[in-house]
Amino acid sequence: MMRAIQGEVTAEMVQVAKEEKWEPEVLRAEIAAGRVVIPANNLRPREKYCGVGRGLKTKVNANIGTSKGTSGINYEKSKLAITIECGADAVMDLSTGPDIDGVRRALIDGCPIAFGTVPIYQATVEAQEKNGSFISMTEEDIIKAVKAQAEDGVDFMTIHCGLTLEALERLRNHSRITDVVSRGGSFLTGWMLHHEKENPFFTRFDEILEIARQYDITLSLGDALRPGCLADATDRGQIQELILLGELVERCRAAEVQVIVEGPGHVPLDQVEMNIKLQKRLCQDAPFYVLGPLVTDVAPGYDHITSAIGGAIAAAAGADFLCYVTPAEHLGLPDEDAVRQGIMASRIAGHAADIAKGVAGAADWDRAMARARKSLDWEEQRNLAMDPTTFDKHPHTRSKEGCSMCGPYCSMKIVSEYLGRPMGTC
Amino acid sequence: MMRAIQGEVTAEMVQVAKEEKWEPEVLRAEIAAGRVVIPANNLRPREKYCGVGRGLKTKVNANIGTSKGTSGINYEKSKLAITIECGADAVMDLSTGPDIDGVRRALIDGCPIAFGTVPIYQATVEAQEKNGSFISMTEEDIIKAVKAQAEDGVDFMTIHCGLTLEALERLRNHSRITDVVSRGGSFLTGWMLHHEKENPFFTRFDEILEIARQYDITLSLGDALRPGCLADATDRGQIQELILLGELVERCRAAEVQVIVEGPGHVPLDQVEMNIKLQKRLCQDAPFYVLGPLVTDVAPGYDHITSAIGGAIAAAAGADFLCYVTPAEHLGLPDEDAVRQGIMASRIAGHAADIAKGVAGAADWDRAMARARKSLDWEEQRNLAMDPTTFDKHPHTRSKEGCSMCGPYCSMKIVSEYLGRPMGTC
Repeated sequence: MMRAIQGEVTAEMVQVAKEEKWEPEVLRAEIAAGRVVIPANNLRPREKYCGVGRGLKTKVNANIGTSKGTSGINYEKSKLAITIECGADAVMDLSTGPDIDGVRRALIDGCPIAFGTVPIYQATVEAQEKNGSFISMTEEDIIKAVKAQAEDGVDFMTIHCGLTLEALERLRNHSRITDVVSRGGSFLTGWMLHHEKENPFFTRFDEILEIARQYDITLSLGDALRPGCLADATDRGQIQELILLGELVERCRAAEVQVIVEGPGHVPLDQVEMNIKLQKRLCQDAPFYVLGPLVTDVAPGYDHITSAIGGAIAAAAGADFLCYVTPAEHLGLPDEDAVRQGIMASRIAGHAADIAKGVAGAADWDRAMARARKSLDWEEQRNLAMDPTTFDKHPHTRSKEGCSMCGPYCSMKIVSEYLGRPMGTC
Repeated sequence: MMRAIQGEVTAEMVQVAKEEKWEPEVLRAEIAAGRVVIPANNLRPREKYCGVGRGLKTKVNANIGTSKGTSGINYEKSKLAITIECGADAVMDLSTGPDIDGVRRALIDGCPIAFGTVPIYQATVEAQEKNGSFISMTEEDIIKAVKAQAEDGVDFMTIHCGLTLEALERLRNHSRITDVVSRGGSFLTGWMLHHEKENPFFTRFDEILEIARQYDITLSLGDALRPGCLADATDRGQIQELILLGELVERCRAAEVQVIVEGPGHVPLDQVEMNIKLQKRLCQDAPFYVLGPLVTDVAPGYDHITSAIGGAIAAAAGADFLCYVTPAEHLGLPDEDAVRQGIMASRIAGHAADIAKGVAGAADWDRAMARARKSLDWEEQRNLAMDPTTFDKHPHTRSKEGCSMCGPYCSMKIVSEYLGRPMGTC
């Protein structure tokens, strides 16, 4: 961001601009204004970078990571491989199992996509392991975790800086059903109430900015008070935190640090668009990173779908970055297939929104697929499919005569014949 | 409808009103006005009826049926069992394999939900089998198929009456990519062009009305020109047919025959709401039955998700009845798991929309689930889950101490502890 403000078009900007079919200079100006970010730690040069923000293709993040006793490093590495195969633009390591440093380093080593973390997890888990309670975490532990992760090349970090004592006081006297469901938010809630102290991410925000500036880390301002159910959506606590996040966006920009803002959560369908527009307004068009939103609470096992519905509407309304939700959400840790399902659901949501927003080139893909369908060109359909692996796995017979869906009664064929049009000349 | 117009509140109306938490008299008036239908052939009394239309819960239909050489009657019966278990409100038999009469009778026998068919399939397939070409179908064959299906107790039928020679002429000189993708529409296109004759569903609509009136069949006016890809959406052909369907709705109402209207198809996200509002306006608020809409063409293997996104937006904008789309769409016939996935995706879309529309009682379900989550009451979560079978199947450890997602770091527990609130008292 610093270099963008100084007018420099970096190699990363040129590459992203080409990918998005933009003029590099236009991209530079958007980065300088803070409406677009390229998450890229300067210690970790990669082959490919991705831009996140207004007017660009909607990007998708996948969360992976160990949990105590239920997942090991090798399994997480295989989930990372699927994440990359499935075309996610970023991955976050949310590990809370043993040896967080070791797991992160194993995952980030050679990772070709943007890599994110949540420093509060490391600070609390290590305090818990050392002293038997996460409450023993010190402010220094938090700064230490941010620094250690920065030095490992992490590209973006969730910083839960909007949860203040004032917001907590509001929560205490509030009628939420699920209170705080952000895990980082719940750690901080416990810590702040126990120690009767302000949130260190907020009080020591300048130190965090300094680290971010040094390594060119993109800060992702976490929404600790995001709603955990439809009934809690868009309440005073959530919006109070959002106002503060908007102020912190300004401090990031003043420090020339790239910043994005995280958002809900569980949100009824008719409140999704409003939430996005409010967020964009209060945060001066900072790129918006949404977790879902899930448009119903009652479909455990299908939350990739509840999230795809909310994500598509959100992205069409201006959200820039979708955090996937897997079918395992609310039930357990995702397995490999759940990771695939989650990424594909988010990519579908993002792409459907890109078409609606008129993002450059988005609709061309669908047009090519439509032509392949009309020609009964199965090889081309496979190549154009968002997930060719799943395409191949479907039980089928497919030929120039039709497929196992309609048997001999193929509408594509019948109509071409009687309209006197050869197949696929459209 | 006849009895509703005469002011009679039938037993079916009382039951549906109770289910929907409506006053029976209000429901009667809506049926009389044609804004609500209860598909129910008078030859086939059932234990439970369902209403479709404005203000009611969004309903879901599942398509099953044989295809030549790829599916038998027993497999379709097992798909019907899953359809019922998964909570679909209606099922359509789209069989085009051997012995269509036999398959239909086997499926409809004891079927507890509304049962629909597409008569043109039977007329064409039997002509093909008899004479080697579906083109040999006569007008009488069509009327015969409608009658045979009516006598078997079919509750609603897709009637492709809006595809006229004028519309076909428009299509011939048109720049559609996928032309006609409705299978019934493609049969009629071939037949009409070959014989240079007007569509018998249109020319003999009065005879069809007479049969419908006799058996109290709900006519579902088919959209033969629905778009088969995003690029073809909302074009002149589609809207031309819709205008005619609106006129035919009036003829149905004049004949006191219940009618619903079918709609697209493949539609970009930003055109979905407009399509629903246009349809409702042109068809005088007749209940609207949507096939999808799919908001992208490029995700074969995931079209239950592309359809859930479009279906949720459509239902929130006023669509009343969602036809499921399975992951197998565009690839082959659905298997049992695909049927389950398809129904659940549509139910999620419908329920998310019902919350958005403020349908009576819809949000209460989510509120109950949120409370069960906050209390870590897994048994209650399972019972409230839209699909308990899938809930049970997810790999997990779940207890009062948390679940395998967060391990010991359960935000629900941590926050309750430090806020000094017992779990689940919200």
